[in-house]
Amino acid sequence: MERHFERDLDELKERLLWMGGLAERAVHQSIHAVLDADPRLAQKVLEEENAINELQIEIDDRVVRLLALHQLMAADLRFVLAVSRINSDLERIGDQAVNIAQGAQRILRHPQVKPYVDLPRMSELAEQMVRDSLNAVVRRDLDLAKTVLSRDDQVDALRDQIFRELLTYMMGDSSVVFPAFELILVAKNLERIGDHATNIAEDVIYLVAGKDVRHPALDRR
Amino acid sequence: MERHFERDLDELKERLLWMGGLAERAVHQSIHAVLDADPRLAQKVLEEENAINELQIEIDDRVVRLLALHQLMAADLRFVLAVSRINSDLERIGDQAVNIAQGAQRILRHPQVKPYVDLPRMSELAEQMVRDSLNAVVRRDLDLAKTVLSRDDQVDALRDQIFRELLTYMMGDSSVVFPAFELILVAKNLERIGDHATNIAEDVIYLVAGKDVRHPALDRR
Repeated sequence: MERHFERDLDELKERLLWMGGLAERAVHQSIHAVLDADPRLAQKVLEEENAINELQIEIDDRVVRLLALHQLMAADLRFVLAVSRINSDLERIGDQAVNIAQGAQRILRHPQVKPYVDLPRMSELAEQMVRDSLNAVVRRDLDLAKTVLSRDDQVDALRDQIFRELLTYMMGDSSVVFPAFELILVAKNLERIGDHATNIAEDVIYLVAGKDVRHPALDRR
Repeated sequence: MERHFERDLDELKERLLWMGGLAERAVHQSIHAVLDADPRLAQKVLEEENAINELQIEIDDRVVRLLALHQLMAADLRFVLAVSRINSDLERIGDQAVNIAQGAQRILRHPQVKPYVDLPRMSELAEQMVRDSLNAVVRRDLDLAKTVLSRDDQVDALRDQIFRELLTYMMGDSSVVFPAFELILVAKNLERIGDHATNIAEDVIYLVAGKDVRHPALDRR
């Protein structure tokens, strides 16, 4: 029974990592559809959306089966529940990549509003947050999880800078209002990707340190 | 053992509903801070945020305890896992209300950009989606859950209308760019509240009909 459980748990982790890889790739391709003005990348993201959605359902089923077959100790239970939440976060990261890909298709109908400076930096940070949060899950790496949290503030700062700059362009030239607004929505989507990576990192910190850092103001644990 | 489990499950549901009530009130107060230009409502939302966060942690703990103490059948397992996901969605609805409340504080520093017509309609729809999705959970009401899904399209349509109108104002008068943009962010927050209510309704449909409607394109179940 015990070895059975270990095997089921290993398979579950492996599928979650696979899902993470798909989500990461979707984010990378969608943002590069914008940055490199490449509509084929946007198309790829839309084509690969189903694979992520199928995997989400498969992982949910594995979680239910694992809990139904084995009576787990609290620590393992918390891990499996965390996998279930991380699964949702990864699927929603995939959704954000789809939003960016669709935005890219609209953006590419207009001339480029401005050279992209902060957007590539913001997207690299967000991608790195997703990658690091997943590595933190696998390695149960507390420090890496904390790094993810600290990057979220940088992502938010870049978002504000991008907003300000694009709003200034909009004030100066009303003909760029629509494409500039589409870029703002892309930055919003990247912000949400960073939020989901933060959720994942918070789950890791909770699992490893037994500390719930989701609501620092509470300071209960 | 059996009665113990029923009691634990009833308490879990009751706490989830209490959490739902707090989230609903936060949404209502935050949006009325904007619509009624009432900064006290925004302040209330910020003060009550901790109560929602504490409840999220309490409900997560209850889920772990319930699963650790009882070996559940697959149907009950799925319900308890759904409670855990709904708990996250409600907390994030609370986060969106906080975002709206903070936006309200910034918006109230400027003269009103335009009379609010679509925003009250959008917020009523979003509030109703949250309320109905929770009622659907308690009553396991398939039809009500489906109503929530159909309203999400209406919310998205109103969001697009609000975006278009505010962007037009921004093109016509560059002095309203910043406050108009804040209103756009409020509409984005309402959209996300609708998304979370939709997630909850999808969980209900899955529980009641045994059908996973999260990804209609897959059509696997």
